[in-house]
Amino acid sequence: MEKLIRRIIETKNPTVVGLDPTLDYIPAQIREEAFAAYGKTLQSAAYACLLFNKGIIDAICDIVPAVKPQCAYYEQFGWQGVKCLAETIAYAQEKGMYVITDGKRNDIGSTMQAYAAAHLGFVEIAQTYCTPFGADALTVNGYLGTDGIQPLLDVINEKPDKGIFVLVKTSNPSSGELQDRLLDGQTVYEAMGRMCEQWGSNSVGKYGYSQVGAVVGATYPAQLAELRAKLPHTFFLVPGYGAQGGGAKDVAGAFDAHGLGAIVNSSRAVLTAWKKEGFSAEDYAQAARAEAIRMREDITSVIAPIGA
Amino acid sequence: MEKLIRRIIETKNPTVVGLDPTLDYIPAQIREEAFAAYGKTLQSAAYACLLFNKGIIDAICDIVPAVKPQCAYYEQFGWQGVKCLAETIAYAQEKGMYVITDGKRNDIGSTMQAYAAAHLGFVEIAQTYCTPFGADALTVNGYLGTDGIQPLLDVINEKPDKGIFVLVKTSNPSSGELQDRLLDGQTVYEAMGRMCEQWGSNSVGKYGYSQVGAVVGATYPAQLAELRAKLPHTFFLVPGYGAQGGGAKDVAGAFDAHGLGAIVNSSRAVLTAWKKEGFSAEDYAQAARAEAIRMREDITSVIAPIGA
Repeated sequence: MEKLIRRIIETKNPTVVGLDPTLDYIPAQIREEAFAAYGKTLQSAAYACLLFNKGIIDAICDIVPAVKPQCAYYEQFGWQGVKCLAETIAYAQEKGMYVITDGKRNDIGSTMQAYAAAHLGFVEIAQTYCTPFGADALTVNGYLGTDGIQPLLDVINEKPDKGIFVLVKTSNPSSGELQDRLLDGQTVYEAMGRMCEQWGSNSVGKYGYSQVGAVVGATYPAQLAELRAKLPHTFFLVPGYGAQGGGAKDVAGAFDAHGLGAIVNSSRAVLTAWKKEGFSAEDYAQAARAEAIRMREDITSVIAPIGA
Repeated sequence: MEKLIRRIIETKNPTVVGLDPTLDYIPAQIREEAFAAYGKTLQSAAYACLLFNKGIIDAICDIVPAVKPQCAYYEQFGWQGVKCLAETIAYAQEKGMYVITDGKRNDIGSTMQAYAAAHLGFVEIAQTYCTPFGADALTVNGYLGTDGIQPLLDVINEKPDKGIFVLVKTSNPSSGELQDRLLDGQTVYEAMGRMCEQWGSNSVGKYGYSQVGAVVGATYPAQLAELRAKLPHTFFLVPGYGAQGGGAKDVAGAFDAHGLGAIVNSSRAVLTAWKKEGFSAEDYAQAARAEAIRMREDITSVIAPIGA
């Protein structure tokens, strides 16, 4: 998590761009190039996504600290799409970006070891160490309790730059069906948040945050502010800004007095910025950069100066 | 889910073999063949897994109704491993087996649409329809509530043979940290189970079970029997038998008066049966078959005659 916070301070930008490619978001000239090369196949779709992602990364890597590829949008194009995910992660890291793989993985201990190796660590193949995906952070679901989380801690605690983000209060309309219900007067999301503080208690770094972060949606600003106060060592990944309806004022409560404590995600608004007036399909990368700057200005206008 | 139940009745066998390949489980002759072909790489590991899986599938496909590949064990070998997952699913289906992809996927609605297409449906690429993974069923995590489940229902409700299994009470030691806590006198796992009944209420088929199943661990037999009584239309996928400690008596409570209502998983005991006395590495497939038969006899000895 340390590297993410350093990058946020360097860029003075507490935002992350979600790389959630669907063919509708990709300009026609890229799609046509891919179809010409590989037909109308999973391979061509994956190739189009990779070209598109590289264009976006090139356009934002000097001003945005991190990207967040969402596994589902790669898995929809089969193993070819998952290959594109691996290539996207490597490319973004080459360009200096912090990569959060949004997989919301969860399982029992022995299986979680395999997920931890897959996404954040390495795997041993006859004394040769290979890196399957090699992201910097992974989103996870804590429904299974501590022994579904411990294998991740075993991998990341040796590497302070790595992190996990546990789902606490998600941004979707029905998130309250389970998460808002009361356990002895405490909501399920608060109980999960307190487990995050516990899981992170051995890894609090120099900025005051541990390697165990939480996902808390921008669409529930009151809960966001409540959790910021209750979980002082837990860094927040905040989805739901922009297309899902959250605005700058809604996310302000996620930040601390040093403009830290959270990173706000936007996917659709950045990836489809070229569809707005004043841009064209050829300009998709510049349009993404313009939207990323607009978002940075919007959010930094309502929080304390970053790193002050 | 209909096809799964038909297969269980045809084979008189309510068990599923978990295909969770790790290199330690794979006999040396297969590993060496893979290393000779592709070096000590993610590709060779994935190739070894595929050879191993095909051997297991060939040995059990006439007597075991289903296999359950666990995504983590494929993702640990990168996109090459995920390609092996796709090839394993296709091979098992060619051999007539029902395939449950154990991914425990979860996300908000729009992203869950992509997971549903990836694992159970198809994706449209410029008016061409492609099948990314094409499993028969998928395990999912319901922490996000209804709008994380609805996109799956939209895909499977058109195809009665398909299904999902939602995590309700998991088999791991710390599952109770959240799942056993009380919400207004009702446990979290019961609340999740009742949501499964609700999500499945429109898809109850001729055997009395809906397309929305639940994952309930063999390691908590009292809760398994409690949930069988409370969730009459929810088919159970039961992990935790064998290596995790659950025995036949522990899973008996998952079944109804017709010997239906559940399918019990075993992974390690079947995949590593060749390591036991009386077998050799060359016999790994026959050893798996012998263990699958032993498990079938063990479980059918404590439940009502299947389909009677």
